[in-house]
Amino acid sequence: MIPDWLTLPSRPLDEVARLAARQRQAQLTKPPGSLGQLEELACFLAAAQGRERPHMKQVWISIFAGDHGITAENISAFPQAVTGEMIKNFARGGAAISVLARTLGASLEVIDLGTVQNLTQVPGVHHLGLGPGTANFLYEPAMTEAQCHAALGAGRDRVEAALQASADLFIGGEMGIGNTTSATAMACVLLDLPPQQLAGPGTGLATAGVSHKIEIIAQSLLKHERALTSPYAILKYLGGFEIAALTGAYCTAAQRGLPVLVDGFISSVAALAAERMNPGVARWFLYGHRSAEPGHQAILEALDARPLLSLGLRLGEGSGAASAIPLLRLACALHEGMATFAEAAVSEKL
Amino acid sequence: MIPDWLTLPSRPLDEVARLAARQRQAQLTKPPGSLGQLEELACFLAAAQGRERPHMKQVWISIFAGDHGITAENISAFPQAVTGEMIKNFARGGAAISVLARTLGASLEVIDLGTVQNLTQVPGVHHLGLGPGTANFLYEPAMTEAQCHAALGAGRDRVEAALQASADLFIGGEMGIGNTTSATAMACVLLDLPPQQLAGPGTGLATAGVSHKIEIIAQSLLKHERALTSPYAILKYLGGFEIAALTGAYCTAAQRGLPVLVDGFISSVAALAAERMNPGVARWFLYGHRSAEPGHQAILEALDARPLLSLGLRLGEGSGAASAIPLLRLACALHEGMATFAEAAVSEKL
Repeated sequence: MIPDWLTLPSRPLDEVARLAARQRQAQLTKPPGSLGQLEELACFLAAAQGRERPHMKQVWISIFAGDHGITAENISAFPQAVTGEMIKNFARGGAAISVLARTLGASLEVIDLGTVQNLTQVPGVHHLGLGPGTANFLYEPAMTEAQCHAALGAGRDRVEAALQASADLFIGGEMGIGNTTSATAMACVLLDLPPQQLAGPGTGLATAGVSHKIEIIAQSLLKHERALTSPYAILKYLGGFEIAALTGAYCTAAQRGLPVLVDGFISSVAALAAERMNPGVARWFLYGHRSAEPGHQAILEALDARPLLSLGLRLGEGSGAASAIPLLRLACALHEGMATFAEAAVSEKL
Repeated sequence: MIPDWLTLPSRPLDEVARLAARQRQAQLTKPPGSLGQLEELACFLAAAQGRERPHMKQVWISIFAGDHGITAENISAFPQAVTGEMIKNFARGGAAISVLARTLGASLEVIDLGTVQNLTQVPGVHHLGLGPGTANFLYEPAMTEAQCHAALGAGRDRVEAALQASADLFIGGEMGIGNTTSATAMACVLLDLPPQQLAGPGTGLATAGVSHKIEIIAQSLLKHERALTSPYAILKYLGGFEIAALTGAYCTAAQRGLPVLVDGFISSVAALAAERMNPGVARWFLYGHRSAEPGHQAILEALDARPLLSLGLRLGEGSGAASAIPLLRLACALHEGMATFAEAAVSEKL
């Protein structure tokens, strides 16, 4: 059963503030609309923050990590040990997202939801101990009800922590060897599309590896066919701890009125699951990056999403979203700092 | 006659440094290639700066402004006075590029090459006084030989000033009511494509305005048909002071080994003119933004260019290039700051 809190309504955006921001944009010294998506970003943030001139100071990044039982089926280019090794790398500051967070002045925290290795000795990481990874969904549901609820709740808790820290934006990242297989399986059911159409190389499978991954997903979908009757069931049977945490985080962010910058393929599947579980939450989502993973396009279309960047990234960790943070800040700076036609005594359009 | 200095060879990129940077990228804790264009950026900057680990600190932005005689044909949505008004707005800090430069810590200077209004009293602007705008190219060449040489030289001089200031990157912006008509006319000849295929709304023409613009360009091309025998002649007959300055700046930057971040439609036409006048200079060019102006796509293809952003901007002023500066800085930070597989004890691909 889906937890009650997950489906509470999201906070409405402030349409009065959005309109005021739009009116301001029309008065700034540039042809109307000529700043494109940077104008829309400023107006969205105005609606989210309930003020004509929004800001984007405090960015909060939570990296959710967990292991996947499906790795037993040999569906990843990297060994499962990498999940734990990368958790240590995040904590020590050597991963891409660590460097991005440092460079951009964003808060970064790492949540170990449950991994094969015992990592409780790694400092600077929240260890939640939901289990040694998910079960192998080729044979059984990935998560128990208790695990799925705990993972959703972990996402909720990190958004509450972000709000406590006066965050202006929430980014959820993920790490989990095998999680493109899990996310692709979920996407197949959410979009009613075959795995051949959505599966891709993930961290770097060759063609034969992708074919095998497709086969494993197809068998898993067949195995659980009768159980996959709701977005919550799809998450529980095919998802992962980190995907459930992202789903819980995204729903909470929308309920509490904190804008989300969604990352790449895995995160977008969690965003779509959140929107299917609680329609309307996606009004609070921005999208940082169009991933090189082929299935991302279909997910983005289902969310009516227009990512800010398209640089061929396929790393996850929140790295695509983090790379787009400067655009949000520039959008706010332009909105706040440009002169109006009247202030600058510039002639308007003929 | 094209000035001799313009066609001196460009500096070779340092392929040894590029290779060293590629080797470093392969060792960083991420799937190979998973940072997409951010990896390529770091490797390009390594080749440009001749060091394995490049940086992107000092960014220099020169805004070149000039008036266009072709505005007499009613081809712009804004009155010609806006060129001068915006020069004042740049200098006072109220324009989009002023805000972007301030926010990003970039140097910004404004060069008034020649405008209808006498602006010599505006402080903080270089006034070059090449004339009260170009001639109306529907009837005569836009520039005299002396004007065209002076404008090209103005671009060269600003790149020399950027080098004096230890710039890591040169961005040229432009302002000139009527300059999409001028740039489109140039693009038609450079690409051998009809104006119907390349002309767009510029600052905001409606459909009838675009049709009229197409007609004016077509008549102008017919008028000068026999003279348009070289890229230099195309610039002199159809260009503008600011487009010539950009062309001169881009050639000088490549000769002196300073990377260029090209802005939108007008700047890309100048970049294409530079490459046609001095083949090879484009190896020093990066592209900030895919403009909403329809002709930009064809220009980008001719330059084999892959812009970093595509946000529907159509403002000019260097604003699209400036918006991409953070990506260059993040690319350098990732390249420098990420741990290697060995340093982080992370397992490599299976």
